[in-house]
Order: sequence, then C-alpha cells, then structure tokens
Amino acid sequence: MVQLQLNLRALPKLLVLCFFLIIWNFYKAEAGVRHYKCEVKYDYRSPDCYKKLVITINGQTPGPTIEAQEGDTVIVEVNNDLLTENLAIHWHGIRQIGTPWFDGTEGVSQCPILPGDTFVYQFVVDRPGTYLYHAHYGMQREAGLYGMIRVAPNEPEPFTYDFDRSIILNDWYHQSTYEQAALLSSIPFQWVGEPQSLLIHGKGRFNCSLTPSLKADVCNSSNPQCSPFVQTVITGKTYRLRVASLTALSALSFQIEGHNMTVVEADGHYVDPFVVQNLYIYSGETYSVIVKTDKDPSRNYWITSNVVSRNRTTPPGLAIFNYYPNHPMRSPPTPPPSPPAWDNVDSRLAQSLKIKAHQSYINKPPTTSDRVIVMLNTQNSIDGYRHWSVNNVSFFLPHTPYLIALKENFTDEFSQTSPPDSYDSNYDIFSVANNTNATSSNGIYRLQFNITVDVILQNANTMNKNNSETHPWHLHGHDFWVLGYGKGKFDVNNDTKNYNLVNPIRKNTVPVHPFGWTALRFRSDNPGVWAFHCHIESHFYMGMGVIFEEGIDRVGKLPSSIMGCGKSKGIN
Amino acid sequence: MVQLQLNLRALPKLLVLCFFLIIWNFYKAEAGVRHYKCEVKYDYRSPDCYKKLVITINGQTPGPTIEAQEGDTVIVEVNNDLLTENLAIHWHGIRQIGTPWFDGTEGVSQCPILPGDTFVYQFVVDRPGTYLYHAHYGMQREAGLYGMIRVAPNEPEPFTYDFDRSIILNDWYHQSTYEQAALLSSIPFQWVGEPQSLLIHGKGRFNCSLTPSLKADVCNSSNPQCSPFVQTVITGKTYRLRVASLTALSALSFQIEGHNMTVVEADGHYVDPFVVQNLYIYSGETYSVIVKTDKDPSRNYWITSNVVSRNRTTPPGLAIFNYYPNHPMRSPPTPPPSPPAWDNVDSRLAQSLKIKAHQSYINKPPTTSDRVIVMLNTQNSIDGYRHWSVNNVSFFLPHTPYLIALKENFTDEFSQTSPPDSYDSNYDIFSVANNTNATSSNGIYRLQFNITVDVILQNANTMNKNNSETHPWHLHGHDFWVLGYGKGKFDVNNDTKNYNLVNPIRKNTVPVHPFGWTALRFRSDNPGVWAFHCHIESHFYMGMGVIFEEGIDRVGKLPSSIMGCGKSKGIN
Repeated sequence: MVQLQLNLRALPKLLVLCFFLIIWNFYKAEAGVRHYKCEVKYDYRSPDCYKKLVITINGQTPGPTIEAQEGDTVIVEVNNDLLTENLAIHWHGIRQIGTPWFDGTEGVSQCPILPGDTFVYQFVVDRPGTYLYHAHYGMQREAGLYGMIRVAPNEPEPFTYDFDRSIILNDWYHQSTYEQAALLSSIPFQWVGEPQSLLIHGKGRFNCSLTPSLKADVCNSSNPQCSPFVQTVITGKTYRLRVASLTALSALSFQIEGHNMTVVEADGHYVDPFVVQNLYIYSGETYSVIVKTDKDPSRNYWITSNVVSRNRTTPPGLAIFNYYPNHPMRSPPTPPPSPPAWDNVDSRLAQSLKIKAHQSYINKPPTTSDRVIVMLNTQNSIDGYRHWSVNNVSFFLPHTPYLIALKENFTDEFSQTSPPDSYDSNYDIFSVANNTNATSSNGIYRLQFNITVDVILQNANTMNKNNSETHPWHLHGHDFWVLGYGKGKFDVNNDTKNYNLVNPIRKNTVPVHPFGWTALRFRSDNPGVWAFHCHIESHFYMGMGVIFEEGIDRVGKLPSSIMGCGKSKGIN
Repeated sequence: MVQLQLNLRALPKLLVLCFFLIIWNFYKAEAGVRHYKCEVKYDYRSPDCYKKLVITINGQTPGPTIEAQEGDTVIVEVNNDLLTENLAIHWHGIRQIGTPWFDGTEGVSQCPILPGDTFVYQFVVDRPGTYLYHAHYGMQREAGLYGMIRVAPNEPEPFTYDFDRSIILNDWYHQSTYEQAALLSSIPFQWVGEPQSLLIHGKGRFNCSLTPSLKADVCNSSNPQCSPFVQTVITGKTYRLRVASLTALSALSFQIEGHNMTVVEADGHYVDPFVVQNLYIYSGETYSVIVKTDKDPSRNYWITSNVVSRNRTTPPGLAIFNYYPNHPMRSPPTPPPSPPAWDNVDSRLAQSLKIKAHQSYINKPPTTSDRVIVMLNTQNSIDGYRHWSVNNVSFFLPHTPYLIALKENFTDEFSQTSPPDSYDSNYDIFSVANNTNATSSNGIYRLQFNITVDVILQNANTMNKNNSETHPWHLHGHDFWVLGYGKGKFDVNNDTKNYNLVNPIRKNTVPVHPFGWTALRFRSDNPGVWAFHCHIESHFYMGMGVIFEEGIDRVGKLPSSIMGCGKSKGIN
C-alpha cells in the first residue's frame, strides 16, 4: 500500500517526465533534416506604396526565414512558377562543403531552373549564425527573391538575449530588372539611377504625391502593404537583432533611435563586442547586434536606414521600434535620427577595422600565403559599353556552368586563359580610368588545392572625376580572414606588415572602401568552383567578378538536376 | 581580220552574256540554302509613341523578312540575348515535314532556348506563299518577337503584279507580358482589357494626351518611331500586298481607302479571286491581295485596321498609302474610311465562305473521314481560375516536350488519358457556361498514322451573358481543308451534307465565328507532335489548345539541341 501510495504521488512527475522525453525524441528525430518548399512566382505588390510585379516566395517578399540547427541538412524544393523566366537560388554564407553543385549560382554551379521545373537543393548548415538566400541569376535578386537563413548553435554563444529578431534591409527600384538591364547595356551607357526607396524588412515608403499623375491603383500611400515595418519589443529586455543587407546598390547606415547596438556576430562569426549608434552595412553582409530595451517605454522609436557612400537622393527607410503597449502605428514624437555624412569614409573604415574575432573564438589564419592575387577594381569602356573589371578583365558567364565544364573537361566552353594575378604597378588609382586595354573574358583563376590564398582588393577612380565607389565583395564556398583595410594604393612591402594575424574576423562579404584596399586570406580547401564578386547587382552584371576553381578532381558525381544548358542538354 | 572585227563587235554582248551566266550560277548556287541570323534581345521602343521594352530581332520589330525560294532549306541561327528569359520561335505555316523538332513550339517540339544560347533551326520551305514566324513561348509573341516569311514560287502564279509588298498587322499593349500573365492568372480573374493601339507593320499611335501625366520621355507623339507606316506606290501599277495578322487578341478589318482588294492567296494557297473593300483577318492568317493604283494620284490614302468582333475601344490603326510623288507624311484629305460594324457576324461569315481554292489549284480532300473530333470551345472556372477549354478540358504544357517524351516513351511526363472526341450533346451553347466539371490536363489526341481526320470547332457562350468570341485556330505541321462554316450548333446529320468537297481552300488558321462552327479535314501524314490552338495569345495561355500525335515511331533521331528541360537534361 505504501508503495502504491508512493507511486501514485509520483505519477504527475512521471507523466511530465514522459511528456518531455517524447517531445525530446520527437525533436531529435526531426532535427537532422529541415524541409522547405518554395513556390516562386510573380505577384503584384506595393512594398513602398508603388505597385509593381515582384518575385515572391510562397506569396511573400522577403521569403520565409529558413530555420535550422547547426549540422542539419536543409532540403529546399524550389518550384519555378514564372512564365518564361529561369531561376537559381544561392544560399549565401553556406559553404556547401561536399555539395558545390547546390551553391545556386547560375553559370557557375548549375544551369538555371526552367519555368515549370522543380529543383531540390540539399546542403548541410555546418555552422551556426545568420545567413541569407537570394536569386543568383541575371539581376533577379532585386525583383524580390530573397530571405534569411538562421542556424541555431549546438553550443552556448558568447552573449545572451531574451528574444531573437530579424531585419533584412534593401533598396528598391520601380523599374523592372529587364528595364534596368536594358539601360545598363545600352550605348551610350544609361545609369539606372538611385533607388526609389529603402525597404526595412520588405516595407518602404515612396512619396506618391511626388508624381501626382500616378493613379491611386498604382501608387497609394494608404495601402496597408506599405505601412511601416514594426518591431514590437517589451521594455527591460535584451534583444538579439539579426540585421542583413541585400541592397542592389546602396551601402547603408542602420540606426535605432536612442538605442546603442552591440555588434556580436558578423557573417556567422562571433565578434569581439563593440558598441555603435549606427551600423554600417553593405550588401551581402549580416550582423547580429544586442539591443537593450531600456529607454522611455511610453513612446515608440524610429528604426532607420540611410544611404551612405553615395550622395543620397533616396529618402531614409523608416520602421517603428515599438515599445509594447504603445500602439504599433503611433509615430515616434521625435524626428528620425540624423544619419552620418554620406561621404565620411573614415567613419566607415573605422567600423570595418573594429570588427575582430571574439577572443574565445579566434581561428588563426596561416601566417604566410602561397599565392597573392591583387585585384584592381575599375570601370571601363569596352566596345562602347560600360563595364566593371578586375585587372582590366570584365567577367561574363559561360553557357555551360563552370562546374560541369571543368568536371567534364569541356575546355571549349570558356577561355582557358586565366585573368592576371596583378595589374600594372604604374596604374594611377586616383585618376579617371582610361585603361583602354580592358577586355571581356570568362577565364578563371585555378587554385592549387589546399593552399593559402591572399586577395588584395584594390579600389580606384571610376570613369567620373574624383569618384570611387564602395564595393562589397562576396566569396562563395568560403569564409576568409580579413587581414586589413587601408587607404590609397596597397603597398606590398609595408602594408603586409600590419596584417592582423592575431584575431582577424572571418567573413564571406567585405567592403573595399573608396580609393582604398582590403586584404583577405583563405584556404583553397573546398573542392568546387566558386564565384567571388561585387555584391552590387548591377556591378556583377557589368562584369565585376572572378571565379576560383579548386580541387575539381575531388568533386563527386554531379547531379543531373543541375544540367540542361550549354553542353549538358540531352538524355543521360 | 573580218573574224576579229566580228569578235570585237560581239564582245559587249558576250560580256553581258558572261555576266548573266555568272550571276545565274551564283544565284543557283545560293538558291538551295538561306542563312539567317537572329539576335533576340530587349530594347526600348515606342512603336505607338509609348516607350516600353520590346523584344527585337536584330534590333527590329517586326523582325527581318525571311525570303526564300520554294524548296529551299532555311537555316536560322537564333541567339538568345535576353537576360533571364527563354525563347522559342515557331515557323508558322511551314509544315516541317521530316523536321518536327524544328517547329519551334516550346513544350511540344523543343525545350526553350536559354539565355546566352544559340539555337539553329533548319527546315525546308516546300511550298510558295506567305508565312510567319513568331515566339511560341509564354505570351512572348506580343512583346514584339515576330516577322514574315515569303517563299517565291518555282512555277508561275495565277496572277501578275508589278510590285510585291508586305504588311503585318498587330495590336499592342503597354503592359508587359509578365504583367498580363499575372493578371490573367489571378483570383479573381482580371481581364487585361482591350489593346492600347493597333499597329500596322510595327507602327501605331497612342494618344499621349489621354494621360497627360506621362512624361515626354515615356509618351511622345512626335517620336519618329511612331510616325505612321508608309506604303509608297507608283500610279498605274499593280501591287501584290501580303497582309498578315499576329494580333494578341483582336480580329481585324483591313482597308485601303478607296481601293478594292482582290484576294488571291490565303495561308500559302491560291484563292479563287474575289474582291473586298475590307479584308477581315484573324490572328495567324496571311492573305495576298492585288491592289491597282488607279486612283487620283495627286493625294495619299489611308490604310486602316479596325477591331471587329469585340466592341472596340481601341482607336483604328492608321498608315499612309502614299502615291508617289506626294510627300509620304502628307495626310490624306479625307477622314479614314468607316469600318464595318463590329458585331456584324454575317459579314465576316460571308467572307469566310467566299475563300475557296483557285480553280487551277484544286487539291481535293478525301470524301470521307476516319475519325471525327468535335471540339466545344468554352470558358470555364477551375479552382477559382478562369480558363478556356476544349470539351471541358483546359490544356497545359508538360515539363518535358511531348516530342521527346513520346519518342523516348517517358509516359510519366504527361497524362496518358486523351481528352474526349466530343462533348455532351445536351450542352446548350447559347447559355452562360456552368460546366463545373471542367478539368485541366496535358493529355493529347493520338492519331492513327495516315488517316483522314475531321475536326469540328464548336463555339459557345462565354461566362458572360449573350457573348461568344471569335477564335482563330491554328494547326501546326499541316494545312487542312476548310469544309464549311455554320451558325449555331453543328448538326452531324445535316451539316456534313453541305461540306464543300469540290474546291475547299487549304489553310493553317481559320476562325470559328461567335455561336458558330467550323469544319476542317486533314490527313495525319506528318510524323510528329503538333499543336492545334486558338491563336489569341491569352486564350492559349488560358488553356485553349490541344495536341495531335501522329506517326511518332516514324520520327527520326531527335537533335540534342532541342533538349535540356524536364527529363532531357544531362550529358549524352
């Protein structure tokens, strides 16, 4: 009887234990594989009050956030429901170790996905952190095809928070990508101009009254689709805010009125924490910042994005940092905070220099490199067309994706001449480019497997006087160590001495500042073919990119799903 | 000396003879094969004064006319210079005997041509006459990708003329094909509306002042690109005018002010000549008319196109019939001729009935048929989407083109259930369609090889009261005999008795008039897979088509160039 009594008294506890064990097993069983379905199609949307066709994923732009646990396999089934237009989706920041064919880069890792087709991406998210996905075909990304990937860690992180929130920043054009491409590739060159608005998590505000001729069904300021994005917060808490930028063009300054932000993660790597009032962020970058909701809780605050590095004509992006229980639509009582001066390069350079690896997560780079490639970034005129070039070579994609062409040894499918590892040392980076010897090529850099490669991005003057732009360079298949930034022309004898070999941050995207240089190091240890390119949509379209091949002989059998173009159309 | 003198005197004549022999041999040597190159890309154009992106061929829309001699082999190298969009070009009216893989119908005879790819079409033009080429993918045709094919005869024709001229008629929308497709496939259904203008050989006129808000760089009435098309003529001559229609939607009436037109050719077949003041022409049809320039030569005359069969809101297409030496831009002193009433079905039916084979070129049809397929044309609602259907089956294209799927016996690639050969005989064609049992399918009609097939197109009421539309049906790979037209419901017992088996015209495109029927006959003697569909761009997009397979076992080895999609992606 005593025993029975004991058992009866323990029953509730046992049931609770049982329940947790079931839940735990269920979770474990599901943790290994994450399935997502993406229906990609055109829809009319008014993200900034102006109605246009956008590419949506499952009806949304930004698309759904992909959530996974470190080590998970993510399977994404993409249905192309566009009418006549192909697709490819890149998993930005995922290294695709062992799956170079699922990098989603059209012309590099795969043929595009045809209308009506279903393509299944499958890859392992081997590191925790904040990543992105977006179209990597033509200039389709800026039509709205993008979203976030959040990978939860298996180990504790070096910071704590109560809530985890995401914001993707973007800029927004009213012209279609076709229209923009037609302008960019016309003679004479026609610049597409500054974006019409800045979006904060898919919402912006174009001033319809600026063009009173637009009918209300085209531009309508009271359309709920363009009500500002609201981040509701509870007072006295700590928020992790994952901030990413996928702008087509703009470098941005991101602010939360009156709130400091502590930067703790960059491109999936823990940062030695530092505090900013405004976070500079470039297209392709992700950051996590810690924000404490310790301000006057009786009001809301502005979240803002502002163009920097270009003389801005685009109005700020505005969203609401909403202290519960204030109404989410209640405007903050103060004007939006002033952004930093657009041309304050020093301030941006200073922030770049601040980003170092967290002291408990230092992964030291090799102390020397086996190969150094210096990449001069210039604007050129080739046959009357405006291009961007690296070492005077403007890049274009081949008809058969490199991965297929290299694996199958189709040597006719792209130029077998590699672009140069450097540029004429007499080149004056402060003068208008008159490098008339520029050419177009689809040649690639072939890297010996498992060596240490340094890349020096060297900025220069554009084809306009006293002008140099910020270029955010993104590397596929790798994280690189950021060894240093500098002003002016890189000096191989002296600047290398100041490389940070102690606690450099690892990243996949990094800016090269106007008239400056940026030095990177990576190991060519991921068999595959990887793009490295300016993340400004129009710049890559105009040739600002290169390709690295490494260990192609170690790449396994290519799936037939990536084929169908160039030399890979047929029945196996 | 005498002989030398003779020779010297003969020299000029010998030289002339020599010259002609050289020219003749040159011509003969070149006659067998005609090479064309087509660069397809987006360009900004203002065909009706309104600037938009159009698809051009070698910078033009309409594209260049393809000229060939009967029996020639035409080789067209198509370069797809679109950024992210595929292509396919159909050679409309060319039967592709022995080359069913070069019919250019995406999803039927080939995979689409990818951006950056070059596709080589090669086919024999085995009959003289007037044909067309145009995009056959999505709704790309109406973006501007079209042109004419003229095949010169080896034998004398049953009419003479001094000059041979061409005019392609079209209608024109300001919205892109993507925008139109997004509207048509939305819930609730959103009709794209009537076209903004009618084009005569690529030129129309939109009244920019109707929307004063449009900036001059978007809509400019003085843009030379939208100056009217001019057909300059010399007085006292006989002109062959080849008139074709490739409208997206509109049935047209075509007129030359004050001038009669004698119809002598239809879809490549000689017609028992008849005279019209206005020529009704439907999308996909071609006619040759003989026009004598015997009017007052001191002035110009209007060439007009007007919408019929729909209550027109689109202004007439206007061009100038310019009597030399009047200035080509001099407006005719009289107003444009009045078009026939838009709803005069009898007048259009009467013209259809007039078109018979020329008495010296009669090719008699078989007197009986082996299979009769009655095709009820209805509008339906399926899962909330608006569709067009044949016998309550709305058609959609498979991912692997039929030709490949059938040849390789990929039976999973499309429904193996054929659509029905007829419809419920109790169906009331005069009532609003409430055929709720409609379905979507990619099943096809499989025809026994070398039999005689009759098709009865049966029109009906749409989903709007007292409304039935004109549908121009186009058959690929064949000419059919037009056995008859009638009003109301086809009566299999009585209407068949009135079939014209004596001198029916052969055509590849034929209208079915509102609330009427049209009877066709053809031989299933061309091994391949052939689309038969309404030539209205949006109607085919919404499912108004069927597929005929015949003699697939007689089709030769498929070229790998047509592959790359569905089950045909891989390395051979």
